[in-house]
This record gives sequence, C-alpha cells and structure tokens, in this order.
Amino acid sequence: MTTVAEAVQLITAQAKSFGKEKISIDEAYNRVLAQPIIADRDYPPFNRATMDGYAVQAADFLEKGMNSLQVLENLFAGGVATQQVTSGTCIKIMTGAPVPQGADAVIRVEDTRQEGKTVYFTTTASRAGQNIAKQGEDARKNDILIPQNQWIDATVMGGMAVTGYAEVLVEKLPKVAIISTGNEVVQVGQEVQSHQIRDSNTYAIRSFFRHYQIQSPVTILAPDSKTALTEAIQSVLDTNILVLSGGVSKGDADYVPEVLQALGVQQIFHRIQIKPGAPLWFGTLPNGGAVFGLPGNPVSVQVACRLFIEPYLRTCFGTRLREPMLLPFLSQKPKKAKFDEYFPCKIVTEGAISGLVSLRNNSSGDIGATLGSDGIALHPHDTEMLIKDTPVQFFFW
Amino acid sequence: MTTVAEAVQLITAQAKSFGKEKISIDEAYNRVLAQPIIADRDYPPFNRATMDGYAVQAADFLEKGMNSLQVLENLFAGGVATQQVTSGTCIKIMTGAPVPQGADAVIRVEDTRQEGKTVYFTTTASRAGQNIAKQGEDARKNDILIPQNQWIDATVMGGMAVTGYAEVLVEKLPKVAIISTGNEVVQVGQEVQSHQIRDSNTYAIRSFFRHYQIQSPVTILAPDSKTALTEAIQSVLDTNILVLSGGVSKGDADYVPEVLQALGVQQIFHRIQIKPGAPLWFGTLPNGGAVFGLPGNPVSVQVACRLFIEPYLRTCFGTRLREPMLLPFLSQKPKKAKFDEYFPCKIVTEGAISGLVSLRNNSSGDIGATLGSDGIALHPHDTEMLIKDTPVQFFFW
Repeated sequence: MTTVAEAVQLITAQAKSFGKEKISIDEAYNRVLAQPIIADRDYPPFNRATMDGYAVQAADFLEKGMNSLQVLENLFAGGVATQQVTSGTCIKIMTGAPVPQGADAVIRVEDTRQEGKTVYFTTTASRAGQNIAKQGEDARKNDILIPQNQWIDATVMGGMAVTGYAEVLVEKLPKVAIISTGNEVVQVGQEVQSHQIRDSNTYAIRSFFRHYQIQSPVTILAPDSKTALTEAIQSVLDTNILVLSGGVSKGDADYVPEVLQALGVQQIFHRIQIKPGAPLWFGTLPNGGAVFGLPGNPVSVQVACRLFIEPYLRTCFGTRLREPMLLPFLSQKPKKAKFDEYFPCKIVTEGAISGLVSLRNNSSGDIGATLGSDGIALHPHDTEMLIKDTPVQFFFW
Repeated sequence: MTTVAEAVQLITAQAKSFGKEKISIDEAYNRVLAQPIIADRDYPPFNRATMDGYAVQAADFLEKGMNSLQVLENLFAGGVATQQVTSGTCIKIMTGAPVPQGADAVIRVEDTRQEGKTVYFTTTASRAGQNIAKQGEDARKNDILIPQNQWIDATVMGGMAVTGYAEVLVEKLPKVAIISTGNEVVQVGQEVQSHQIRDSNTYAIRSFFRHYQIQSPVTILAPDSKTALTEAIQSVLDTNILVLSGGVSKGDADYVPEVLQALGVQQIFHRIQIKPGAPLWFGTLPNGGAVFGLPGNPVSVQVACRLFIEPYLRTCFGTRLREPMLLPFLSQKPKKAKFDEYFPCKIVTEGAISGLVSLRNNSSGDIGATLGSDGIALHPHDTEMLIKDTPVQFFFW
C-alpha cells in the first residue's frame, strides 16, 4: 500500500502550471509570480540619508578637529541640493534625501545645535559613510530582486511596488469543483432528519481553496447513486482540480472509484498508509487535471487538503512546499493505528522552547476535533509511544 | 520613552468593536464570530458506524462463541434499519449509517466473508461499542461548540456548517484609510526621477489588511506640505483606522504629528523604544478611531503592522492575539541598537528542533530586507549578543 511520501510524489508528479496571466498589482496579493522581479535601477537609487541631520565631510571632524560648520541650505526628501559640501560647510538634510556631492557622512540632528547659519556638534562623525545607505547596497540594477514562482505576500508586494511593477505576470488559478457525496448529507440551509448530517466538507474544502485566492469553485451535493454521481462528475470534467468527499471506502454504496473510471478518469492510487484518511483515491481527468477522492469524515478531509491537495497546488504554481517544522511534543500519546498517524495539535509556550500539545480527538468523524488546533503533527508508524519532549513533525494548517 | 509592551497596552486600550453584522456562511471565511456556535443536537446525532461492516451484538462472540450470523438487511448511510438486531443476526452497515436497535458493535467488512444471507467472521468483536461513534460523544445538544469571537478558519467553517449556521453574526470590518507621505514618493505606475522612490508602503499595508478581509481601504499619496496633509487627513476623519507612513520623525518636514493634532486627533504616545520604527506615533480620531503614524521606511512599516496594528485589530474583533513562539536562534547576532530590536528571520530545520536564522538586513530602508522571511524575532535591549541556541521570541508575519 502506498506510503504518504509515495502518495505526495505520485500526486506532485501530475502537477502542471494552469498558465500565466498579467494582472494589476492591486489584485496580486496571495498569488504566485510567474516572472522574476528585476531591479529597474540601483537600490537605494542614490546615497540616501537614513537620519534627519547634517550632511558633512567626515574628515572635518576626524582629521581637522572642527566642531562647528556653516549650513549652506536645507535639503528635503524628494529634493536635490543646489550646492556642494566642502570642508567647513554642511547641508541640513532630512531622512530619505540624496546625500549632496562632497558630503560623506550624516550627523543626527539630536547631536547638534543650530544657531543661525552655524551648527555646533555635540557628537561628531566617527567614520565616513555614517547614517548613509549607499547607492546599490541593497540591490544592483538588473539584479533579480524576487525570483519567479515566489508567493506574493506583503513583503513581495512591497518589492514589486518599489521596482515599479504596476502589472505583473502571475500563475493562473485553476478551475475547481467540489462534490460532496452521501445519501445522509443535506445542505446547510435545509432541514435535517435525525439520521442525516449536514454537509460541512464543502465548506472546509472551499476555505482551503479560498486561502489560495480560488474564490468560487463549483460545488455539488450528490447522493450515493451511480447515475447521480455520473451526472455530477460529467458536469465538471473540464475542471483542473476535482475534489470529492465520501464514497471511496469499502461500503456497498462507495461508487466513486468505479464511476470515475467509467468516465475515463485514470486511477493513480487508491488507499494509502495514513490515519485518518486511508481510503484516499487519486487520479487524473481526461484533460490532465487532478481528481482527489477524499474519505467523507471531516478530519480526513482537512488532513488531506493540507498533506495532498496543497502540495499539488503549490507544485502547479511552481512555488516551494511548506515544509513541516520539528517541535517538541509536550504531551504523551500511545499509538492508535498501524499507519502514520496525523493528529491535531496546538502550539503552547511554557518552557524555554514552544512545543505541541495534542487536542481531544474522539475519532476522525469528530466535528470538533480540529477546532482550536494550529495544525497537525505526525505520529510515525514505527513509534509506539510519543513521549514528552520527542521532536515531532508539525504541519501548520 | 514608551516600551513596546507599554505601547501595545496603550494601543489595545483604545480598541472597540466595529459592530456586528449577519452574513452568509459563504462570506464568513477569515472573519470573526460575534456569536457562539451552539450544537443544535447531539454530535454524532445518533450512534454512527465508523466502518463499513456488520452491526452485531458483541455478546454473540464474547459470551456465546458464535462465528457466523444471519444477515437481516443492508443499511446505507442516510437510511434507517427496518429491523432490529437480535442474537444470531446482524445487519450489514455502511460508514455513517445509524447503528440499528439491538446492535452494540460493528465488525469491519475486511474481517468477514458473506455467503448468501450468512456472514462468517475471521475476527470477532472484542468489546461492545467497537467501531461505533456514540451519540453525543463529540458534543451534547446546546453545548457551545465554538466560542464567540473565534477566528473563522477552515475548521470553524466546518463546525458552523455541520450545526446549520447558513447565516452567522460576525464582527464588522473597519473603514481603513492609508496615507503615504513624502515629497520623494511617487505612485507605482508613474515615472520616477533619480532622487525619488516609488510608494511601496501602501501596498505592504494594504496586504496586511487584506489578510483580515479588509479589501479596499482608501489610499492617498500626500506630499510633505501642511496644507496637503491637512486636506488628506480631513478627507478620512470618518474612518475607524487611519495609517500614515512617513513624516513622524525629527525632520523639518515631518508635519504629521502637528497636522493630526490641529485636526483634533489626540496623541497617546510618540516615539517608542524599538528598532526599527522608534518614531511611531499613536493617537485617536475625534470619532474614537485609531491613528497609527508609522515611520516611512519599509521594514518599520511591516514590523509596526505586525506588532501594533494587528493587536489593535484583533482586540477590536475580540479575538485572541497571536502570541510569539519561542524558538532556538541558530545564528549569532551582536546588538545593534540600545532598544529592543526586531529583525527578519527564516525558520530552518537542520537539527532536532526547528530554529531561526537571521536574514541579510542592511538597514530598515532595505527594500529586500524582509523578502523570504517567515517573521521577525526579538533581540532584547538588555542582551549584548544573541548566541547560537538562545531561545528567542518569534512573531510569524
């Protein structure tokens, strides 16, 4: 039976870009760059004052022992000096302004006292270059400031803006469809009978995709009938990613694998060595898209989104996978299954280093099992007991 | 001068809810609950089979030594048994179906072989309750499943859906305005002269708010003139949160504090013991809203969003603050400033436990300083050298 690592490998091997598109920087947050961001000029673009103060020649203090200078003019950010700093003179300068010709240091305004056109220094320059960000010290013109396939977070947005990318090439988003299966499943707004449950998986899966800016997947609720399933799946064969929940286990009404294959979906694997979520089914659509058949219980669905659909999506986008952290486990936990076991944990900071505690978890069907968790930790198949202070792999949601 | 902890306290003391509103569950992702989510019935709502198999009386195996039973009927999820399980009989049952009356255990289909109406067991029940999720074991009717003011992530979305909250009361979002100041600052799409720089702060700040579902703040670019600043600020006095960047330090054109106060904005503090970002200004609008005057350099802006605006926002929403983790520092770092110093770090997993390495960081004006970082770590003011394996406070972006 396929291991978790093998499953991830088989899944990511099917990944391919959904194409590229040019969008406005205003829409780019949480998308993925399909081009590198190149420095259009040196950064800083000029020798920039990093403090409010006086632009001076350091040698006036270090070699000539002066303690006062003549102020030639006031220079603001966004301005350019009309004069040159020479020995015995200085220019009052504000943070962000270009250091005038002739000057090689800035003395903070806090260390000075100006009277008329003369400034007296209570502290003097200790070296040339003081309080100056040198042209090109952060990046050189034509440097790759941000590599292609970088995830566009707030830091990347800032870098794109400063280098003038009002528009930017990004990875296209996939078309996604979610089919929640089961005769017992009813829609959230509908009345529910005592032997039925409401559909929660669609909402959990949709939230997962929402994080990736995929706003409106097609969602379908399908009963456990071959006809209904066939119809539902047929209507979304043109998607890039199809996620089903339920119908992939060993029950007599678990028609999902059979119906998928009848519709030309190619099975890559069925069942893997994991708890929860062993019945996982994965295959490819006739158009090359991916099909994830998840078991129907809510914990399995959330675990599979994080461990399997996320790596697929990020590989399609060409962006690096989110690796697990290694953190000390602060509870004790006996082994419950023969497979690798993933269980919801919360980060707590009690001792010198933050660690993990496991949460109450009745079963993989427990509707509250993941509430309040920060992610899932791995209890490896070959470890009988997770004892306190064991380092464990931890996957943030 | 105000410490970081004092600043956070002064800021959060001004926080108040932006009101509540009822929205569809479809819009609720990454919002904050303004009501608790109550279990509308027991969960599970019935004794639920957690495996595909046979619903039996455990005593038939444990006490009566049987190894085959008569199959009365097949029961699917979403169905209800028409008969009762008695000694010597069983009902074939699928995962998710309600366990029929009389049965108290489920034997996995993998451990059986059925011939006609008789099923033979290769493994038998080891206890009553086996493979059954008991009614109410996850939550009891009227239990608070999810407390008020919880952040609505994928796990909470699932909980809301299963309990039938098609609509839900959430905390309203604030009206936000961002004013980027400076004569040297030009808009991203505009031509930039050699002594000018493009506005990146607006994009970084807007991305920060985007994470909180605040999509379209008012954004204004204002030059360093009292008239222009007055006009810009006056136009957004009705917002809940006003963020300015630049103009709060000691330069001769740093008019922001003066103009704010002339417009009736009350100063709570100016300047705090932090690097980068010491000139931070905080006050309250006449309408009770908050004004953050951030220093103009990009690293300060990102640090201030994380350390000061985020706690304000989360306190307004009534949701818990994101506490720093304690992680081992894997580099070495000498002290650069007399204040608490926050510097960009990346998480790396080399040894037994994940730790932090600091990134290249020329200065707080470095446009690339935070690129590739996972967050910021604290170098406390009273620690000369951060040596390898010191636990440090780490704040995820």
